[in-house]
Amino acid sequence: MAEPIEFWFSVASTYTYLSVLRIADVARREGVTFIWRPFGVRAIMKEQNNIPFLGKPVKTAYMWRDIERRAARLGLRARVPAPYPLTAYDTAHHVVMVGFAEGWGEDYVRDTYRLWFGEGLEPGTEPSLSTALRAVGQDVTRVLAKAAEPAAAEALAAATDAAKARGVFGSPSFVTRGELFWGDDRMQDAIEWSRRGTLAV
Amino acid sequence: MAEPIEFWFSVASTYTYLSVLRIADVARREGVTFIWRPFGVRAIMKEQNNIPFLGKPVKTAYMWRDIERRAARLGLRARVPAPYPLTAYDTAHHVVMVGFAEGWGEDYVRDTYRLWFGEGLEPGTEPSLSTALRAVGQDVTRVLAKAAEPAAAEALAAATDAAKARGVFGSPSFVTRGELFWGDDRMQDAIEWSRRGTLAV
Repeated sequence: MAEPIEFWFSVASTYTYLSVLRIADVARREGVTFIWRPFGVRAIMKEQNNIPFLGKPVKTAYMWRDIERRAARLGLRARVPAPYPLTAYDTAHHVVMVGFAEGWGEDYVRDTYRLWFGEGLEPGTEPSLSTALRAVGQDVTRVLAKAAEPAAAEALAAATDAAKARGVFGSPSFVTRGELFWGDDRMQDAIEWSRRGTLAV
Repeated sequence: MAEPIEFWFSVASTYTYLSVLRIADVARREGVTFIWRPFGVRAIMKEQNNIPFLGKPVKTAYMWRDIERRAARLGLRARVPAPYPLTAYDTAHHVVMVGFAEGWGEDYVRDTYRLWFGEGLEPGTEPSLSTALRAVGQDVTRVLAKAAEPAAAEALAAATDAAKARGVFGSPSFVTRGELFWGDDRMQDAIEWSRRGTLAV
C-alpha cells in the first residue's frame, strides 16, 4: 500500500517545471497521492550557502539544455533560458500561499510554470500574475492585496520552516515514509519508496 | 544505430561509484558502447567555483543517503559516508592514467570503487592502491613509480582539457553525438540520445 508523498516545491525553481507539469498524470498512472507543499527555497539555500547556478555559466547553460531535452520527452515546451532568477520572488511565493489557502493553488502553479517556460513570462510579475490568476478564475486585485498582507508572508515562513524540519534543501523534493528525495529526477525513487520503503531489489 | 558514448569520470567523485559498477552490464544489456575517459574533475570545479558539498552538511548528508539507497537498488554495498574528499587526489588520478595507458584501467577503477564504498578504503592511499593494483595483476612498486613520472600528470592535464573542451563540469558525464549528460542519473538519457539524437517522444 503506497503511502502519500509530500511534494515540496518553490516557484523559484527551474527543474520544478518538469515535476509540476507531469505530477497529476504520474499520480493517476502510478496510483499514488502527492500532497502539494509550497515553500520558499531561497531562504534555505542562502542559509546553507547552496548556490547552484549564480556565477557558474557552464553549469547554468547545461541546466537549461538538460531541462529543454527532458521537457521534450514529456511533450512540454521549454523556451530556454527562461527569465531567471526571479526578480519578484516574494510576490510570486505569497500569491502561491494564498492560492493553496483558497484551493486554487495547484492549477495556478501549473499555469504559472506554463507561462514561464512556454511564453517566457516571469512568475510574480506582470503579465504572468494577471494571466495565471484569471485562468483560475480569481480577481487579480483581490488576490494581490491578500498576498501583500502579513498572513501570506507568515504562511510562507511557516511552510519553509516545515520544509527545513524535513531536511528539504532544494526544489522539488519528495518526502514519504520519512525519506527525502531531491530533484525532479527522483520522483520515481520516491514513488517506489512510498510503496515499499526501499529501493533494494 | 547507436553512436558510442564517452564516459567521463574522475575517481574523486562519489556518485561515479554507481556508474562504474554497473556500466559494463548496462552496455551489454542495452547494446551500446561506452568509451572510458578518465579526467581530473577538481581542476574544472575549482576553476568554475563549483563546490557542491564542502561546507554544506545537509546536502552532503543527503548525497550519502541517496547513494546508499540507489546502490541498494543495484545490489551494491555502500558503507557511507565513505572517506571524502580524497586526500591523495593526484596519486589516485595518476595511477588511473597509467592504467588506461597500459590497458588495465577499467578493472582497476572498478576495484578501487569497490574498495572505497565496500570496505571504506580511500582511493590513492594504502591499502587501496596495493590491493587494487594486485587485483589487476600489476606490480605495485613499478606502477607507483610510473605514476610519479611527469608523463602521468601530463596525461591527466591533457584529459582534463579534453573534458573541458566538451563542456564537462562534473563526474560522471556522458557525451554522445556532441551532447553532454551530467550525472549517474543521466546515463539512460545518454543511451537514448546515442540511438536517436533526441529524448522527444
